[in-house]
Amino acid sequence: MFACHGFATTAPEKPLSLYSFERRDVGEKDVKIDILYCGVCHSDLHQARNEWANTIYPCLPGHEIVGRVSAVGSGVTKFKVGDLAGVGCLVGSCQHCGNCAEGLEQYCENGFVGTYNGIEKETGKVTFGGYSEAVVVDEGFTLRIPENLELAAVAPLLCAGITTYSPLRHWKVGPGQKVGIVGLGGLGHMGVKLAHAMGAHVVLFTTSPNKAEDARRLGADEVIVSTDPKQMEAHALSFDFILDCVAADHDVNAYLGLLKRDGTMCQVGAPERPLSVAAFAVIFKRRNFAGSLIGGIAETQEMLDFCAEHGITSDIEMIRIQDIEAAYARMLKSDVKYRFVIDMASLQDAKQAA
Amino acid sequence: MFACHGFATTAPEKPLSLYSFERRDVGEKDVKIDILYCGVCHSDLHQARNEWANTIYPCLPGHEIVGRVSAVGSGVTKFKVGDLAGVGCLVGSCQHCGNCAEGLEQYCENGFVGTYNGIEKETGKVTFGGYSEAVVVDEGFTLRIPENLELAAVAPLLCAGITTYSPLRHWKVGPGQKVGIVGLGGLGHMGVKLAHAMGAHVVLFTTSPNKAEDARRLGADEVIVSTDPKQMEAHALSFDFILDCVAADHDVNAYLGLLKRDGTMCQVGAPERPLSVAAFAVIFKRRNFAGSLIGGIAETQEMLDFCAEHGITSDIEMIRIQDIEAAYARMLKSDVKYRFVIDMASLQDAKQAA
Repeated sequence: MFACHGFATTAPEKPLSLYSFERRDVGEKDVKIDILYCGVCHSDLHQARNEWANTIYPCLPGHEIVGRVSAVGSGVTKFKVGDLAGVGCLVGSCQHCGNCAEGLEQYCENGFVGTYNGIEKETGKVTFGGYSEAVVVDEGFTLRIPENLELAAVAPLLCAGITTYSPLRHWKVGPGQKVGIVGLGGLGHMGVKLAHAMGAHVVLFTTSPNKAEDARRLGADEVIVSTDPKQMEAHALSFDFILDCVAADHDVNAYLGLLKRDGTMCQVGAPERPLSVAAFAVIFKRRNFAGSLIGGIAETQEMLDFCAEHGITSDIEMIRIQDIEAAYARMLKSDVKYRFVIDMASLQDAKQAA
Repeated sequence: MFACHGFATTAPEKPLSLYSFERRDVGEKDVKIDILYCGVCHSDLHQARNEWANTIYPCLPGHEIVGRVSAVGSGVTKFKVGDLAGVGCLVGSCQHCGNCAEGLEQYCENGFVGTYNGIEKETGKVTFGGYSEAVVVDEGFTLRIPENLELAAVAPLLCAGITTYSPLRHWKVGPGQKVGIVGLGGLGHMGVKLAHAMGAHVVLFTTSPNKAEDARRLGADEVIVSTDPKQMEAHALSFDFILDCVAADHDVNAYLGLLKRDGTMCQVGAPERPLSVAAFAVIFKRRNFAGSLIGGIAETQEMLDFCAEHGITSDIEMIRIQDIEAAYARMLKSDVKYRFVIDMASLQDAKQAA
């Protein structure tokens, strides 16, 4: 075991603050990564505040991790010391169920191990995430990071990127297709960039007309203000696929009606309360209301390579770890373009101040 | 035009009663069918009572029609006088949109013409359905009826049969698959028979334990009492496909949780109020919540031929047309095994009594 520092919380109502803990030593198949940047996902906040009622305290969030390899186990073949490396939402899975065998560890039938708030197979202890100096992860759950992209802006690809990439690939989005992205936040802005790079005609749905210019800059061909029934009606029956990135309550039937026959609307935002789906909205054109969860390790690597090829990263605002609570407060107001990323160098200042 | 009799209603609160009207003469591509039997679908009752708020009165229901051809137009090639023939839910569509071109007239982008409560393209008048002596339909919307099946029991195949057959085919149900059918009514009992004939392992979900024996007789391999959480949990993550035939409010998330990764639950029952779908129920295993609407003409013919090959018909209770209101009352209590069919010979008694 080795000593490590990070930012954690010990109760739902307490702010994150400097926390010292131990990480496991580097095992045969393990990679130790000195963390340079960690993205801030809305899930981090849900978990820190126990909004899913399953948080194990202390809770140390962060699953959009990039850094440099500082040690490798004797059996590691993918990485050497000094390489860039990343870790996303998963650090383990059963590795023997049908879904794992297909490389879809995110759907592991025995439950994947989350990068935080999971139970580490190697130690039986709770996993701590990327708001920290370093992390030790099995190389099978560690990603190669392209050298040609701005490193801090790569971090959010590990969750926001793969969460949108995976359904766009699964439902075979490409040239000749009209694809909707609902909501221009952390997920949505990646959805726009990726769907555009895949060659689709991309339409952004937003409730904020002032986001139109930004959406076009990011790759949207059209912008629809979803609160305007006329704009919505004009697009009835015209979409091949809609990716719904909204995590708040909203009327999904309005979007289902825009799909062509056999079209799919896929949820990646996860509203707390169930969504109301009109049976007729799916029956009348044999539509699908679906969902998708992050992505497997192989597909996450494919996404990173795709982003390297197309020069795609997240639009980010860099913060110091000392300012994480202020960032959460802004995130709650959707006041971020489009993802906060923690500069982990700031953690050293926090340690010195302590 | 020629004089015709049937049973119709003139207002939501009025019972169906003897009604005389005119049908169009047989045109070049038309087939005149003397109706022998007509199935009673729950939609008939919804429409007669204006429960979808779109009924045009007088309303003469019936879209599970079988009979014998008594006249054909000069351009008709599929039928000759004396042939058995059938008509389902559709008697017209635009014939030029993409969906019609693919033989999916039920999804016609310009709206199909319903067998009743539609607007007849040939005359501009409201269509009247199968609770009548005869019907005149374009041969393109007329089905060939196998000679080897009990004719009265074929009638419900034209709606209940195709409504369940089409999604089972679309989602490629077959050997090696575990398929659920929710609800053992008019639709559900056809779903069990058809899925069984397609070679799937069929599981019926019911709230009525006393339906288990009947379900097994119809082809179910297993029966799950859906109100028993233990029975439900034992089948978690095990279904390839679930066909939901329930038209009342119910908890669809309980069924979504039984699907494997990438599994689909398809609605063919159409509850009036929207269904509550938990985002997590579709996100966690990339599941689909879908719908399906009857079937196109080509697929309806394929279904009839499939039923002829496998000796499949509906389980029916024959009624006289004079007893239609009593049948509706029993249908509302799900007190029918499993479809009422009107013996149209009874209409002659009604005429004589008038």
